[in-house]
Amino acid sequence: MKKLKRNERVAGIMYILTTKPNYVFSYRYFCELFDVKKSSISGDISIIKELVEKIEIGTIETITGSGGGVKFAPKVQKEKTKYFLEQLCKDLSEPNRIISGGFIYMLDILYSPHIVKELGIIFANEFMDKGIDYVVTIETKGIPIALMTAEILNVPLVIIRKNIKVTEGSTVNINYISGSTKIIQTMSLSRKALREMSKVLIIDDFMKGGGTVRGIYEMMEEFNVEVAGTGVLISTMSPEKKLVNNYTSLMILKDVDEENRKIDLISNFEYLNHIKKN
Amino acid sequence: MKKLKRNERVAGIMYILTTKPNYVFSYRYFCELFDVKKSSISGDISIIKELVEKIEIGTIETITGSGGGVKFAPKVQKEKTKYFLEQLCKDLSEPNRIISGGFIYMLDILYSPHIVKELGIIFANEFMDKGIDYVVTIETKGIPIALMTAEILNVPLVIIRKNIKVTEGSTVNINYISGSTKIIQTMSLSRKALREMSKVLIIDDFMKGGGTVRGIYEMMEEFNVEVAGTGVLISTMSPEKKLVNNYTSLMILKDVDEENRKIDLISNFEYLNHIKKN
Repeated sequence: MKKLKRNERVAGIMYILTTKPNYVFSYRYFCELFDVKKSSISGDISIIKELVEKIEIGTIETITGSGGGVKFAPKVQKEKTKYFLEQLCKDLSEPNRIISGGFIYMLDILYSPHIVKELGIIFANEFMDKGIDYVVTIETKGIPIALMTAEILNVPLVIIRKNIKVTEGSTVNINYISGSTKIIQTMSLSRKALREMSKVLIIDDFMKGGGTVRGIYEMMEEFNVEVAGTGVLISTMSPEKKLVNNYTSLMILKDVDEENRKIDLISNFEYLNHIKKN
Repeated sequence: MKKLKRNERVAGIMYILTTKPNYVFSYRYFCELFDVKKSSISGDISIIKELVEKIEIGTIETITGSGGGVKFAPKVQKEKTKYFLEQLCKDLSEPNRIISGGFIYMLDILYSPHIVKELGIIFANEFMDKGIDYVVTIETKGIPIALMTAEILNVPLVIIRKNIKVTEGSTVNINYISGSTKIIQTMSLSRKALREMSKVLIIDDFMKGGGTVRGIYEMMEEFNVEVAGTGVLISTMSPEKKLVNNYTSLMILKDVDEENRKIDLISNFEYLNHIKKN
């Protein structure tokens, strides 16, 4: 690579750090890439450290010792998150989203890369200090949010299937009753998918009774891993008592009034842990 | 926001542009964000333009006229892509990946955020000049690659379901025969999912006979949209004649020899369009 000027190098390092959140890059990596001394890289990192805090996109963390280096941890801005979730509630409450049966059409939101990226950053912030090893979801609609959360946390994604697929080798199967359908279903996960004794974060798009997430908890027990957190985009207000106790939902669905074409969906912003802590 | 020094502003703009690839930001947006004149932003953009080309991560494109502005289009480096695909072939050819039935375990690869991001950049480069409006995939294993491709192209993702879900409103259903299973299956897609007359890019993880992708083609006809390209991660060497003609695969699976525990998988690097063009 051609030799860079200092402001170019700063922008280059900024690019590398921010496009791989929570990934630890060694100083040596940057020294070799830009062909400069460690002291120059240290100076660059100081500038970037100050900058990311000024423009409020996260923090630069330095890890000392062998295997040490530097990483970028994205943080959400309080006001921006509040506004984002309120806008999303407003958008999802449009009357023409109501589908017969009292459901809400939200695939355009759940599959929009920019929106799920933002949701991923919010969930990642919520669980960043839990030592998560995997993000676990169940197909299909929660996959994009889960993948983005995994990308930000720099951990692998694991997808539980609803139908056994021969192409994934031997699987663990769990029967569960989904709150929405009241039908007994089977979820399966390849035996190779998770390392024992690791910590997982469960991410899903929607929770009513909590039957599906309860099923995932049982599945995780089979794999001998710990559920360190559960995040859902929307949980329903009723039933108040879910089959799982510990979860974070970004929005609460109070009511879908099919007759009067009215959706009552509110942001759960003020109950987010990382918002309360800041 | 606090007033920034020039090198800080350059790094800040670099961050904003590169974290939303192919998204057009107006100059006014940056002027207001950083509270500086347009001439300053123009100067910053010039520095960034030169820089992204120097460090070979893409190009900065300026769009003139109303609705104009500036965007970052990521580009893959030839040598890096070659190495990446060769390493991936090597990793996927590990004998312990063989599952009885002649299948290959590859979920860890297909669900790794960093790997699917890289694959998304490769696919996006391949089809960047086709005027893609949507990336379309079919559940489940191809979703992460498809989402990342959609993110880079800055278009929505559309996921075709294999089971009809009542929660998505009225759907279009197509029967198809998957080459791998030889069983008649049904794929469904919500009527609201695609705008008429738009252009789509189909992304999937694996192609044998091409029955699934052929089914997606039929589905797209029902929606009156044009298939502007098809990208698959792996296609099998046999059958040589697939049910679709026009597709780009990143790797070719020549053979899985279960008895001798040998996988013969090769990179298709030299046949990629954007590699040939450069």
